[in-house]
Formats: sequence, C-alpha cells, structure tokens
Amino acid sequence: MTLLVHLGGIDENEWAEAFRAKMPNQKIVTSSDKFDPADITYLYVWKPRDDVFDGLVNLEAILSLGAGVDPILKHPHLPTGVPITRFVDETLTQCMSDYVIANVAMHHRELTHYRQDQRAHHWTQYYPAPAGDIAVGVMGMGQLGEDAAKKLSMIGYQVNGWSRSKKELDGVHSFAGTEQLDDFLRHTDILVNLLPLTAETQNILCRATFEKLRREVLPHGPVVINAARGGHQDEDDIVACLNDGTLGAASLDVFKTEPLPKDSPLWDLENCYITPHIAAISSFEGGVNLVAEQIGRFERGEQLKHIVDPAQGY
Amino acid sequence: MTLLVHLGGIDENEWAEAFRAKMPNQKIVTSSDKFDPADITYLYVWKPRDDVFDGLVNLEAILSLGAGVDPILKHPHLPTGVPITRFVDETLTQCMSDYVIANVAMHHRELTHYRQDQRAHHWTQYYPAPAGDIAVGVMGMGQLGEDAAKKLSMIGYQVNGWSRSKKELDGVHSFAGTEQLDDFLRHTDILVNLLPLTAETQNILCRATFEKLRREVLPHGPVVINAARGGHQDEDDIVACLNDGTLGAASLDVFKTEPLPKDSPLWDLENCYITPHIAAISSFEGGVNLVAEQIGRFERGEQLKHIVDPAQGY
Repeated sequence: MTLLVHLGGIDENEWAEAFRAKMPNQKIVTSSDKFDPADITYLYVWKPRDDVFDGLVNLEAILSLGAGVDPILKHPHLPTGVPITRFVDETLTQCMSDYVIANVAMHHRELTHYRQDQRAHHWTQYYPAPAGDIAVGVMGMGQLGEDAAKKLSMIGYQVNGWSRSKKELDGVHSFAGTEQLDDFLRHTDILVNLLPLTAETQNILCRATFEKLRREVLPHGPVVINAARGGHQDEDDIVACLNDGTLGAASLDVFKTEPLPKDSPLWDLENCYITPHIAAISSFEGGVNLVAEQIGRFERGEQLKHIVDPAQGY
Repeated sequence: MTLLVHLGGIDENEWAEAFRAKMPNQKIVTSSDKFDPADITYLYVWKPRDDVFDGLVNLEAILSLGAGVDPILKHPHLPTGVPITRFVDETLTQCMSDYVIANVAMHHRELTHYRQDQRAHHWTQYYPAPAGDIAVGVMGMGQLGEDAAKKLSMIGYQVNGWSRSKKELDGVHSFAGTEQLDDFLRHTDILVNLLPLTAETQNILCRATFEKLRREVLPHGPVVINAARGGHQDEDDIVACLNDGTLGAASLDVFKTEPLPKDSPLWDLENCYITPHIAAISSFEGGVNLVAEQIGRFERGEQLKHIVDPAQGY
C-alpha cells in the first residue's frame, strides 16, 4: 500500500514530507525515487507524464491534485476501472469566486473605458447601471460554478446558470442542456465559463456563441470570462470579436497553449485581460488533508469522495 | 405649500414634470420659473447656489437630492431650524456597493501588476491570497457603509467597520471612535472611505493614516478607496504615498476640485484608478418617490425620514 507522488513541475518532496507528517504509517515515494511500480496502490497526480501509469498493476485510486481532470482522462495509458477523484477544497473554490467576482464587477463598472479616459485626462461622467440590471451567465454549475453564482446573486446581480441538468439554487435562473443554451445566452450580458472540458464543450466560446449574447444592457457590448480551460475557447474568434465589437471585453485566465505564446495577438488587446492561469490554485494544506482522508476511506472500505465519471468527463 | 426644484446643473424640468405626475395637487416651480419666494415651503436641492435661500421665509423642509449633505450644511445662508433630509435609496446604495466591491476585488486580485505583465508579454504566475486572508476596513457605517460591509463579508472578505458608535453587524468587526482608529487601521489591508464629510473627517486620508495600515498581506502594499468626498483626502499625500510604496494602489472617485484639474499628477499614476464622481447616483424614480413620501408625511403631521443632524454633520 504505497502512495506515489507524481506532480509534473511541482516540488514533490515538499508534498511527500507533508504526507509523511500527516500519515506516519503510510509508505510514500516520489516519481524521482527508486520504487517497484507493483507496490503502488495510490497515485497523487498532476500533469501526468506519458509513462506515469507504466507498471502500476496494483493501482487502487488516482487522486488528482487539480479540480479539472481532463489531462488524466485523456491520458493514452489510463488504466480502466481504477477510480479517479477530483480535488475539491474551499480555498480553491473561494479563489475561483474571487477571480470571477473581480472580473465581472470590473467589466460591469467599465474599467477599460474609465482607464482610457484617465490616460487622456478626460472627466466624462457616465453611470454604470446597478448590478441588478446586469445578467451574469455562469456555464457549468459544479462546485465552482455554484459558489460563484450564489455569491454574484448575493451582491445583487441577476444570475443565470447553464448546466447539463436543471439546478435548484436560490437567486439563480437555471437553464439546462443544449436545447436551452441559446435562451441562456440571449439573457446574458457577462458570460462566465467554469465548464469541465469535454468533447461537447470544446471550443464552446466561439463567435456563434458570442453573437447570441444580449447587447442591450452593457454600453460596450457583452463580456466573456474564461477561468476553466483554454480548450473551451476559439482564440481566433475571441481576437476577432474583441476587435469588431461583438464582445466588449474579455478576461482570460487559460489558453490553448500555456504559457500563452509571446506572439499571440491576445496580449496587445486593450479590452482583453490576461492572467497566467492563476485564477485559483489548490491549497497545499487542503490537498494534504484530502489525500489523507481518501486513503483512510479506502482502507476502511468506505466510498471515496469526489469520484469522476469518465463517461461524463468530470 | 409650493415645492421649489433647485438642482444646479441638472434638468429641473424633467424632475418637475415627474413630481407633477406623482403629486397632481402639489404646486411645483423650478429655479428658472418666476415665483414668490414666500410661497416656497419645500426645497428639493442639489448644488445650492449662493442665493438659493434668499426670501424663503416660509421654508418647512430642505430635501437633499444627494446622500451627502455637506454642500447644504456649509451654505453661508442656511436657515436654522428647518429640517434637512438626506436622500436614501436602494439604487444609490447598490451602485455604491458595486463600486466598492469592484475596486476591492480588482486590487485584491492584483490587476495593476497583471496588466504590467500583460503589456510586457510576461507569463509570471503568482497567486493572490483567498478573500478570507484580506481585511477590508470600511470607514463610515451608515446606510452605504453597512451595505458594502455586509456584501464584502458575504463574498468572503474579513471586514472591519469604523464608525462614531459601535455597530452590531454579522461578519463585521466593529471599531468605534477616535480611540480605536489606529487599531482599526492596523488590522486593515484595503481601506474604503464612505464617511460623511465633517470637520473631524476632513483630510483623514493622509500619510499618517496610510502608514498605519497593515503591510504584511497584500504583496504590493495597502490600498485606499475613496468614494465619499474629495475633502476627505490629502491629494499631495496620496501622490507621494503611491509613489513611495506606502500605498500599493488607490481608487478615487472624488477629488478636492471637481472636475479633477488637467494638471493633477493623480491622472498619470499607473496604480491610481480615477473615476469622475460616478460611483453612485441617486435614481430618478427613487428621488421622485421619496420627495412625494416626505411631503405626504409633512402634510399629515408625521416625522420626516432621514433627517440630518447639523451638529453631527450628517
């Protein structure tokens, strides 16, 4: 019963030491240690390398460090039948809502245009509508989408949620399934993407989607905010739509290729707000606690938490 | 019993027509009409001119269009003994909280530094702390301060409130009086000013105040946000403190002189976010309804709402 810590690009020893402190009786190795692959029962993983699963014939659970499990699900050598769990923690959820609220509120309050006026030393008064006039549409109503939607509603925004199945959530107007997507978009001024990346949601942030957003409320046009995955967005369409006014502004934390290539036209768009995939990070403490809890559950024969359904993709 | 509409720089006829529609039996004049000053019993006022009170010997109530009544209270010819009421409406409160939340969240999420990185095409990951690690200090816990404080707390911030007397408010740590000001500042990362402008609060946003703010949490230093009055701020100190790092950033919606003079050094500071006194505006509908309600109360012999205490200054 050995835990393998395999975290591409992250300090595995720091994690391994914290796990040893938390679980003194647990055998723990890192990907740079020498070990017999057949001993490995638990894999704690981020950015899995091609050979990560090689020889792990006794693997019992794959514990993801990230909330998004698409890099694991699309791994060419993913063993079948081994449960995969997502990372869920309050800090990650709070940080994601922080990012969403900051970007929604900043665009609603017309930051781009006031900064332009400021640079020109222009004093031109125009008054952003109150939050109650603005509809924020949250795509993806999992743990993250639900928390962001609730908080946006509490501070006064109209909130629409779009998800696979209908959700009952105070203050949130729920739209479900592809048949209600257009209706959801037509009632949305600021679109926030927190979807899992699956075959169906690939490139969902494209011109056809943006053209359906409501244009009557925000004076400079609708806004898109993507904090999920670069695979959700057609970056050529975003550049074109930001340039031709189909979109008033965008905030992007994720990109098709990361780091975003130096020559991407996104960098230089005044109405595009780029952050380097930092919207929300799993907390170290939260990660240590969850892994210890999951191993404890497994060894007591209990059900693991936050199990992924590979058929749904999240 | 005549209502005089006196709104420096605002379309008085638009208001007068709306009042006539709401109160068909009420006599209403604007400041550009011919009228006998002795007939005026109610004054609806914004930006009072020097001669506004001349001849108003039968004035029964002064109804302010604005939430801040300092321009009325400091008027050299203000009649004594006439009740003055403030404007309170939900739209104004909502807009002010929108402004506060947008600016708190934007600074917490390090907008200035990510924009600098973006302009340089730099992909440098650093992770803002969760909202729960950030303490926002709200100075002034009236209608506006209370709403902003409650909402900041609901979305996860630590919130301190500072006011003349101690307040009991869920999720808000209350500090009261000058003797607790230093303690309040020492526990605050982002300072939000929503105080009334009085002799005691004049220039309260100065170097001595900024130097007491907590420096340990925000990586680029504490932040000040002023949406109350320009008279609260020492602008020379703000420029110097933004330049020397005493402050990490500022958002200013109000200024000593408005419009802000073209040659003010505030315009060109990258970490100073200027808006032209547009944080919150009284809503037209809310104003019409409140004036009708106040006149109805007065004529039925009831107490007016939102009466100002000239001794306290708000």
